[in-house]
Amino acid sequence: MTLNRKIKLTVAYDGTNYCGFQIQKRDRTIELELVNACKKLFNNEFILIGASRTDAGVHALCQVVSVETVTNLRIEVIPNALNSYLPEDISIQNAEEAALDFHPRYDAISKTYLYQVYNQQYPLPQLRNQAHFCNRPLNIEQMLVASQEFIGEHDFISFSSAGGNIKTSVRTIYSLEITQVDKMIVFKVHGNGFLYHMVRKIVGILLEVGVGKLNPEDISRIIEAKNRTLCKRMAPACGLTLAEIVYSLKDEDLD
Amino acid sequence: MTLNRKIKLTVAYDGTNYCGFQIQKRDRTIELELVNACKKLFNNEFILIGASRTDAGVHALCQVVSVETVTNLRIEVIPNALNSYLPEDISIQNAEEAALDFHPRYDAISKTYLYQVYNQQYPLPQLRNQAHFCNRPLNIEQMLVASQEFIGEHDFISFSSAGGNIKTSVRTIYSLEITQVDKMIVFKVHGNGFLYHMVRKIVGILLEVGVGKLNPEDISRIIEAKNRTLCKRMAPACGLTLAEIVYSLKDEDLD
Repeated sequence: MTLNRKIKLTVAYDGTNYCGFQIQKRDRTIELELVNACKKLFNNEFILIGASRTDAGVHALCQVVSVETVTNLRIEVIPNALNSYLPEDISIQNAEEAALDFHPRYDAISKTYLYQVYNQQYPLPQLRNQAHFCNRPLNIEQMLVASQEFIGEHDFISFSSAGGNIKTSVRTIYSLEITQVDKMIVFKVHGNGFLYHMVRKIVGILLEVGVGKLNPEDISRIIEAKNRTLCKRMAPACGLTLAEIVYSLKDEDLD
Repeated sequence: MTLNRKIKLTVAYDGTNYCGFQIQKRDRTIELELVNACKKLFNNEFILIGASRTDAGVHALCQVVSVETVTNLRIEVIPNALNSYLPEDISIQNAEEAALDFHPRYDAISKTYLYQVYNQQYPLPQLRNQAHFCNRPLNIEQMLVASQEFIGEHDFISFSSAGGNIKTSVRTIYSLEITQVDKMIVFKVHGNGFLYHMVRKIVGILLEVGVGKLNPEDISRIIEAKNRTLCKRMAPACGLTLAEIVYSLKDEDLD
């Protein structure tokens, strides 16, 4: 049967209890749950592709997934129909028609990640799965100065882990904002793409600056060295959330 | 051995995985975990009393617990020492010396509860344990008008469940604020005390007003009727958080 319809799903999830997005041999993953829900709704006739392979414990507000299928279901009923088959830590937020050649990974032109740090003397249980707890005083001003070193096009190999099949480690970061509301510090990073572990390593090194172990001027040195061993600290997965994926107008026109 | 020292603990918890605060015969409770941690730190020589018997699934930012004991531990080390024995969904936020006659329940002069409602078309997994999900449009203006009917001293028996050993069902609500940030609606209720299920029943009936099932003027009628059967809807436990307990100056002087 020819798959003649492509649906773009926006998916939110709490990644705490998953071994990441991508289907693996054994472990429970977000993609596996989505595939299982689609099997029920679309009778096994579908191809599902996700935009971003988020790691174990990482969350999403707007993971994008395409489902190529043959259903006649009205687009408005699809989120609730899939949600009825999904566990409560995964939820479809939107469904819209997409062009048949839409590819959630290759057509993405930029992504935004949020990283939350709860900076207080004692941990707050309500935030334990959504924010990294740090009880050392953080110098926000120094972190802000350091954060600007990441802006622009750089070879970010120093801020990546081995793994993944990539052609180049050059990426562009458009903005890196750090805001504080009460005891919560939020890092918001917008770029054209991110290497494996890149956001967590950037936040990790900014926290090293925040506690005074590194100076803001160390950042450009580490970037220029193009050496993975220089960035040892990686912020834990729980604080990270995939917050937005932007597509070109080609796709947006169909909204 | 004479218990010669009283410590006032402020405790935060995510109540999702507990059958409430109070120790029961079988089920896992917050108080049980606190008692088990204190047994380790204080060698079984202590009396622990909690201020508020929060229900199953209800959270706290500042539950207050007194521990009468004989320890020579410096007050500053007590939170981390107890936290090392507590599960990650319970966390001591503060420890301070209290007068030997301090009683966390009887000496409380007012309490503040927060109730969160996530009002959006589809549920957000990250909020599932901290906010009640409601996908029906809510008329905030009507809820605000209705909320003012609760202010002041009333017999709140219509907004309570049977249970608990109480002398009177008259309570005073000092304020009831409703604020909305994006899709989150927060009810903040400050009063001198609350009957069993009172906050959840008040929020439940305000949601009935919000969806248009009741009018603001129905509230005073239901209060005056003093009849539990008139308030049928109780908002679920997950949205409720004990946010503050205020004590008289007697205790504050010792801070």
